[in-house]
Amino acid sequence: MSLANQRVAYFNGKIVPESEVLIPFRDRGVKYGDAVFDTTRTFGHKLFKVGEHIDRLYRSLRYLRIDPGLTPSEFGRITEEIAERNLPLIGKDEDYWVTQRVTRGIDASDRGAWPDHTGPTVIVETLPLPLKARAKLYRDGIEVVTPSVRRTAPDMISPRAKTHNYLNMVVADLEVVAQNPSALAVLLDTNGNLAEGKGSNIFIVREGVIYTPVERYVLPGISRETVFDLAKNMGIGLVEKDIDLFDAYTAEECFISSTSFCVCPVASVNGARIGDGKVPGPVTHRIMRAYVDFVGFDWVRQYLDQIDA
Amino acid sequence: MSLANQRVAYFNGKIVPESEVLIPFRDRGVKYGDAVFDTTRTFGHKLFKVGEHIDRLYRSLRYLRIDPGLTPSEFGRITEEIAERNLPLIGKDEDYWVTQRVTRGIDASDRGAWPDHTGPTVIVETLPLPLKARAKLYRDGIEVVTPSVRRTAPDMISPRAKTHNYLNMVVADLEVVAQNPSALAVLLDTNGNLAEGKGSNIFIVREGVIYTPVERYVLPGISRETVFDLAKNMGIGLVEKDIDLFDAYTAEECFISSTSFCVCPVASVNGARIGDGKVPGPVTHRIMRAYVDFVGFDWVRQYLDQIDA
Amino acid sequence: MSLANQRVAYFNGKIVPESEVLIPFRDRGVKYGDAVFDTTRTFGHKLFKVGEHIDRLYRSLRYLRIDPGLTPSEFGRITEEIAERNLPLIGKDEDYWVTQRVTRGIDASDRGAWPDHTGPTVIVETLPLPLKARAKLYRDGIEVVTPSVRRTAPDMISPRAKTHNYLNMVVADLEVVAQNPSALAVLLDTNGNLAEGKGSNIFIVREGVIYTPVERYVLPGISRETVFDLAKNMGIGLVEKDIDLFDAYTAEECFISSTSFCVCPVASVNGARIGDGKVPGPVTHRIMRAYVDFVGFDWVRQYLDQIDA
Amino acid sequence: MSLANQRVAYFNGKIVPESEVLIPFRDRGVKYGDAVFDTTRTFGHKLFKVGEHIDRLYRSLRYLRIDPGLTPSEFGRITEEIAERNLPLIGKDEDYWVTQRVTRGIDASDRGAWPDHTGPTVIVETLPLPLKARAKLYRDGIEVVTPSVRRTAPDMISPRAKTHNYLNMVVADLEVVAQNPSALAVLLDTNGNLAEGKGSNIFIVREGVIYTPVERYVLPGISRETVFDLAKNMGIGLVEKDIDLFDAYTAEECFISSTSFCVCPVASVNGARIGDGKVPGPVTHRIMRAYVDFVGFDWVRQYLDQIDA
Amino acid sequence: MSLANQRVAYFNGKIVPESEVLIPFRDRGVKYGDAVFDTTRTFGHKLFKVGEHIDRLYRSLRYLRIDPGLTPSEFGRITEEIAERNLPLIGKDEDYWVTQRVTRGIDASDRGAWPDHTGPTVIVETLPLPLKARAKLYRDGIEVVTPSVRRTAPDMISPRAKTHNYLNMVVADLEVVAQNPSALAVLLDTNGNLAEGKGSNIFIVREGVIYTPVERYVLPGISRETVFDLAKNMGIGLVEKDIDLFDAYTAEECFISSTSFCVCPVASVNGARIGDGKVPGPVTHRIMRAYVDFVGFDWVRQYLDQIDA
Amino acid sequence: MSLANQRVAYFNGKIVPESEVLIPFRDRGVKYGDAVFDTTRTFGHKLFKVGEHIDRLYRSLRYLRIDPGLTPSEFGRITEEIAERNLPLIGKDEDYWVTQRVTRGIDASDRGAWPDHTGPTVIVETLPLPLKARAKLYRDGIEVVTPSVRRTAPDMISPRAKTHNYLNMVVADLEVVAQNPSALAVLLDTNGNLAEGKGSNIFIVREGVIYTPVERYVLPGISRETVFDLAKNMGIGLVEKDIDLFDAYTAEECFISSTSFCVCPVASVNGARIGDGKVPGPVTHRIMRAYVDFVGFDWVRQYLDQIDA
Repeated sequence: MSLANQRVAYFNGKIVPESEVLIPFRDRGVKYGDAVFDTTRTFGHKLFKVGEHIDRLYRSLRYLRIDPGLTPSEFGRITEEIAERNLPLIGKDEDYWVTQRVTRGIDASDRGAWPDHTGPTVIVETLPLPLKARAKLYRDGIEVVTPSVRRTAPDMISPRAKTHNYLNMVVADLEVVAQNPSALAVLLDTNGNLAEGKGSNIFIVREGVIYTPVERYVLPGISRETVFDLAKNMGIGLVEKDIDLFDAYTAEECFISSTSFCVCPVASVNGARIGDGKVPGPVTHRIMRAYVDFVGFDWVRQYLDQIDA
Repeated sequence: MSLANQRVAYFNGKIVPESEVLIPFRDRGVKYGDAVFDTTRTFGHKLFKVGEHIDRLYRSLRYLRIDPGLTPSEFGRITEEIAERNLPLIGKDEDYWVTQRVTRGIDASDRGAWPDHTGPTVIVETLPLPLKARAKLYRDGIEVVTPSVRRTAPDMISPRAKTHNYLNMVVADLEVVAQNPSALAVLLDTNGNLAEGKGSNIFIVREGVIYTPVERYVLPGISRETVFDLAKNMGIGLVEKDIDLFDAYTAEECFISSTSFCVCPVASVNGARIGDGKVPGPVTHRIMRAYVDFVGFDWVRQYLDQIDA
Repeated sequence: MSLANQRVAYFNGKIVPESEVLIPFRDRGVKYGDAVFDTTRTFGHKLFKVGEHIDRLYRSLRYLRIDPGLTPSEFGRITEEIAERNLPLIGKDEDYWVTQRVTRGIDASDRGAWPDHTGPTVIVETLPLPLKARAKLYRDGIEVVTPSVRRTAPDMISPRAKTHNYLNMVVADLEVVAQNPSALAVLLDTNGNLAEGKGSNIFIVREGVIYTPVERYVLPGISRETVFDLAKNMGIGLVEKDIDLFDAYTAEECFISSTSFCVCPVASVNGARIGDGKVPGPVTHRIMRAYVDFVGFDWVRQYLDQIDA
Repeated sequence: MSLANQRVAYFNGKIVPESEVLIPFRDRGVKYGDAVFDTTRTFGHKLFKVGEHIDRLYRSLRYLRIDPGLTPSEFGRITEEIAERNLPLIGKDEDYWVTQRVTRGIDASDRGAWPDHTGPTVIVETLPLPLKARAKLYRDGIEVVTPSVRRTAPDMISPRAKTHNYLNMVVADLEVVAQNPSALAVLLDTNGNLAEGKGSNIFIVREGVIYTPVERYVLPGISRETVFDLAKNMGIGLVEKDIDLFDAYTAEECFISSTSFCVCPVASVNGARIGDGKVPGPVTHRIMRAYVDFVGFDWVRQYLDQIDA
Repeated sequence: MSLANQRVAYFNGKIVPESEVLIPFRDRGVKYGDAVFDTTRTFGHKLFKVGEHIDRLYRSLRYLRIDPGLTPSEFGRITEEIAERNLPLIGKDEDYWVTQRVTRGIDASDRGAWPDHTGPTVIVETLPLPLKARAKLYRDGIEVVTPSVRRTAPDMISPRAKTHNYLNMVVADLEVVAQNPSALAVLLDTNGNLAEGKGSNIFIVREGVIYTPVERYVLPGISRETVFDLAKNMGIGLVEKDIDLFDAYTAEECFISSTSFCVCPVASVNGARIGDGKVPGPVTHRIMRAYVDFVGFDWVRQYLDQIDA
Repeated sequence: MSLANQRVAYFNGKIVPESEVLIPFRDRGVKYGDAVFDTTRTFGHKLFKVGEHIDRLYRSLRYLRIDPGLTPSEFGRITEEIAERNLPLIGKDEDYWVTQRVTRGIDASDRGAWPDHTGPTVIVETLPLPLKARAKLYRDGIEVVTPSVRRTAPDMISPRAKTHNYLNMVVADLEVVAQNPSALAVLLDTNGNLAEGKGSNIFIVREGVIYTPVERYVLPGISRETVFDLAKNMGIGLVEKDIDLFDAYTAEECFISSTSFCVCPVASVNGARIGDGKVPGPVTHRIMRAYVDFVGFDWVRQYLDQIDA
């Protein structure tokens, strides 16, 4: 990628080419993962629920007592600007993740080489969605596998803050992917209930009602919340409760939600086919269609078009 | 600090001024804390147990399945060189932390602006010990406080790997320091036993025998191991077992060990004075003297000299 | 206090000066804390919800299989009488706690010196509320701190019975008060969720809805129930659910309820300021006003008047 | 019992008839069970291991941060004197429990009727052992039953402090005795291992080695420690470890130890006969004989003599 | 029983006398309990909710990934036929359990002596209800006792699948029945809440509302579901939630449901009398009457008639 | 297999062809898995440690309170006879599993068709070892995978009894084998430590010392015990302790033991190569050779010879 065509990012007050977003190794974000982030996406080059994502970013900041030095609305404006500046670099059929990141910065005692870096480190950046890599999942469904590693318990570090501490997810992924490279790891919580995958929430359907794990053990996804709203509008029951592998194996349908996936059907859990094996199931299909309508963009088509692209 | 006087660090194959050790924000070390490190120190400008620290670094790497692209002996040589290059920059009465860090690097899909960064990110760096800031603790003893947050459980992410995921420790510190800025947070494990503080192990003494938490719930410190060896040589019993707040409150002595602290007495746990309140207690004192002899350098004096410096 | 002016109490069938309420050291209430109690208060010298408190006393008795030898209505009448007899001893601007206590009495084998003491020990007594000591909390808000000690789990001894076994609370208080003498200890339950403080329930507010821990892990306060009723009447949502430190740190408001506090705003949890730091927040304020209206007495004013008294 | 023949007790600095040991109902020992105690016994009218019991009392005091206002040696002298004064009141074939108790006293705000009671409440007292009531257990063995209630977990309130908070034991006893009035409740700990009964430790024997639960979950009995010493002297292996119902049901022998029981064989656990059903088993028998020799008094005979007395 | 009068059963495609339903010892159903079952009953010789039971059977099959080789409707027809063939063998006042069982069959490597047994083993069978043995329970109420053994946790093997692995229940029963042969063991779940007895669900009533444990920890009984429907029809509140011994001891009424019991009042839990001790309590009585009406058969009378039969 | 060549088995007092060992479907062994078993093997047609296996069988029987109606020595004689009768049916290079099984028999109320079957059901039987199917594992090492399902906790049903309740293992296997048909499932215990696989114990080696999970969470294998003895004889340290995935991933070697496997090297755990990836590692190799010497038969050769057989 030539410098001329490089994406730009917001970095501590300036807009710079991505290659210049370089973090001092003594930043607590590097040393400790002492940082939070949040990510929205564009649909047909339009940003989705920026305000909701920034609100959640501030809850993560609050949990870690990090002062970002910006107001939510400043964050909103920066987010819009970065998206706008970078959108011309991708095709019409592509879209971006747009991400805010805030680290606690450099400890006073560590600032030797960066004496002026007294506040947090703030980044807003974009990344094209991996449409092609995921396209088949919309046709065939995701294979969910639960690793033996349990999701970090809320009395240790809350899964509800979206932070740069992802090793619990990383070791879970390593475990699962070593057996099945195309599987998605969804961790169980400390009680053995389904919790979440890296950046994704899980839902099952039984007798026409949708169930998803309670918020305490998972990051409350904005897409998850969108599913809540869509279900409500369509009169489909949706209940937050503890759900376990018995629920999953006997479910009629299963799907995951995430910022980038939006909603994607699950074909199997631990190799056990869900329902009759056809994806998406009818309720999942309705949610997906409503999601497409709600955002005014056919992201299902966007994904599927990449299968043989 | 002028560039001329700046410390240097090893960074992906080169030795550069610290200010040039800058990590692409898309490095997994930044985004996920997907990285490990290990830290030794110098005593009177001489490195301590480099081999043991590098062995532990490799166990952390192995746990996370990161290939550092260097052999242990290469790491040893780099460590020695970096220490040697930086020692002239500090006074005779000062010493360094010397640290190796390895991140998993940048995911293939994220390498846009850094197309050649295909391997791990490797750093070896030094930092002067905070002697003055800690000096009083050797005179007065540490105030240990146990936060309500529990140490991450081993079936989520093992505390025995020394990683860049420190938020569990960070939230514990925030909790404790908000009530008492001079206290040291020592977390309880998932069963309510004493575990560890950020980079420090805890020991108690009862009837002349030393007890310290079992390895499963804590990082097995090299200084902790040094204490094991010293105790053995002096014929002092030392037992690894689950110890809890009852043990701490009824202990005759208590101390912590860490790379930089070596051994430092604890004056109180949750405000309850340990033993008769004089620090260090007799067993702690013997361990401290033996430690000084073992490393051939009076680090106790080094700390205490800073009290009114 | 001269004997003439002494408060009286009900003690095993008689009304006597408090100084004569003396319990044989072999009473199981003394040896084992094998006893229950319940406490209401007066508002402007009028008793509050005596019936509800006595009902709860009987649930505690039932849990421990203690027969008090009195009917609930007898207990009610005694309570009224004791309050009436003692109210003349305090000022118009003061009020009482009024407490029933029942121990299991003396084991048959231990009755040597008290051969006739064959039944339970029953006390009904009063104590002036500590208005002055708490007054500032209504102006500044309470500083809540969560100790490392966990609230006793329900499969060991249920927190829902109000008994004379308070050591779990006592060790929690010792831990917290040693770091911050003005803080209120609120313990986490065995799963790491917020439970309760000594005699107080905790509530948070988020997006206008009030949340409070489920009954299983806490004493279901009569004031807590009063808050439920007031919220319902005002159309404010109130939900019992597991709430944790993430909830607390990201809450807009936080308050506690108790018989004597009624409702008192919380300013911070573990040093993290709640909301924008102004107390009481708007929802808390509405609940407090409604509580004042409901009891027909301005206890907020009563407390605040003591600040410089 | 006429006053002339009444036992005396130490009570806050004086020696008084037991009937005068009366505790103000506002004492924290009454209201909260905020008190500790320890109990030794006499063998043939001679006190046993007073020093060890007082040391343990001080560990309990330390855990609760109660200052008894007396030195251990003062406590020892008082204990001796109280025993001496009361021994003439019982027969040659009888013996005493001798107990120290310390409460935290009365809170400053509660001292209205007892203005001078500013320190702890201290009692030393005696009680004849229930020899007759237990005699058959030495012939037939104890029937141990494990209730569904779990022993209080150490991160709530440590079972290693001997306090006046016994409700966890009381509800366990109620559960067991309702089904079998002659059974002894031995609770399981929070992990489902055998813990302890009210004042008694449990041991099993397998292949000639004795096993008993680790100290963390139980009060470390002085009699338990005596068994340790006796086993060591006789070359019988004795190991502290987690033992569960599988261990109990497949044990060759089982026994309990306590101050008053010393050592008493267990005939069955949850109705499952231990070993071949003959009590005491050979290892238990050796321990019992060694215990008799060690204390120089045949307490087995003392108990058995009461069967038809 | 002469062969001529023997009940018949469906066994792998054939209807045979019960005595010919013999399972090869190498069948996984025998070796591992690797099998599921479900059981309905007749009321006045009419089958009850066959479809619901078969649906549940299929959820159990799905959980264990056993293919029964039959469709649900085939199972339904077989069930009807077996009931019909056997009903003439019992009196008018008697009724049957009718049970479907499916094992995974014989592993390929174990089929030596049964080379043709390549599929699952399928049985449908009947057994007369033990009316007489249970009759008194309807008059006096059940004595429920909670054993120390905990119900298997859902992240080990889900209690919601009805399988041939009953040892958790068996050891619980052994524990309880050894103390009280007429008691019913109801296990606590891994959190210490009430779970279920062997084939029975438990309910309590407080202030007119019925509570029963959540489905995650128990087999969701068809009779339990029937109680849900009846309560709803009568406008009686019924809530699924965690209930514990405090709830049980302070309940006004308690009852159990099961296929054969339908609804039977509980008189005591761990020896603590429920409510005022009269059975059935008013809410239980209403549910029982409604149940009788719903099935069109007075099973209460059927049981009670057996008391002196 | 013709009847003439069929293996025989002991079945309730008689020796019969295997095809006649058929269990009434009402046997509790079938309905509930209410049965225990134990299995030894032959080495070069000689039985191994029959006495130890039968002793363990009796501990399992004792745990479940099943009376087998035979003495251990009678069981021993039957075992020998059955082995002897069946050995001629296999080749010199083959060997047998020899298994005792005891069910609790048929409940009195269920004996209709089998009125005389009043005692337990007892079987002793043989099965050729699956040498060929496992041969490659000795060359390549086993791939161990830990499922998300946890091993049944000891306070639910003890893993130390060898029973017919294997569904916990079965669901674990289903989970693992769906991702990798050649992997061996080794479950974690309720604390997240390594426990055991179906019939196999696991060991790791670090710095020349062997570690294996403590007995409480696993069946104490006779082969495991044999490894203990061999290690002791060779002066190799062997320690029972909690070991977790960190231990496994950083181990130098790993192996499993079982009756049929004896000792077999593990190549990887969750896809992470153990040590340098060569199997067997040096310590494992020494144990294997010592095992071969101890039993006087080269079972390694026996397995390896089958690779291309």
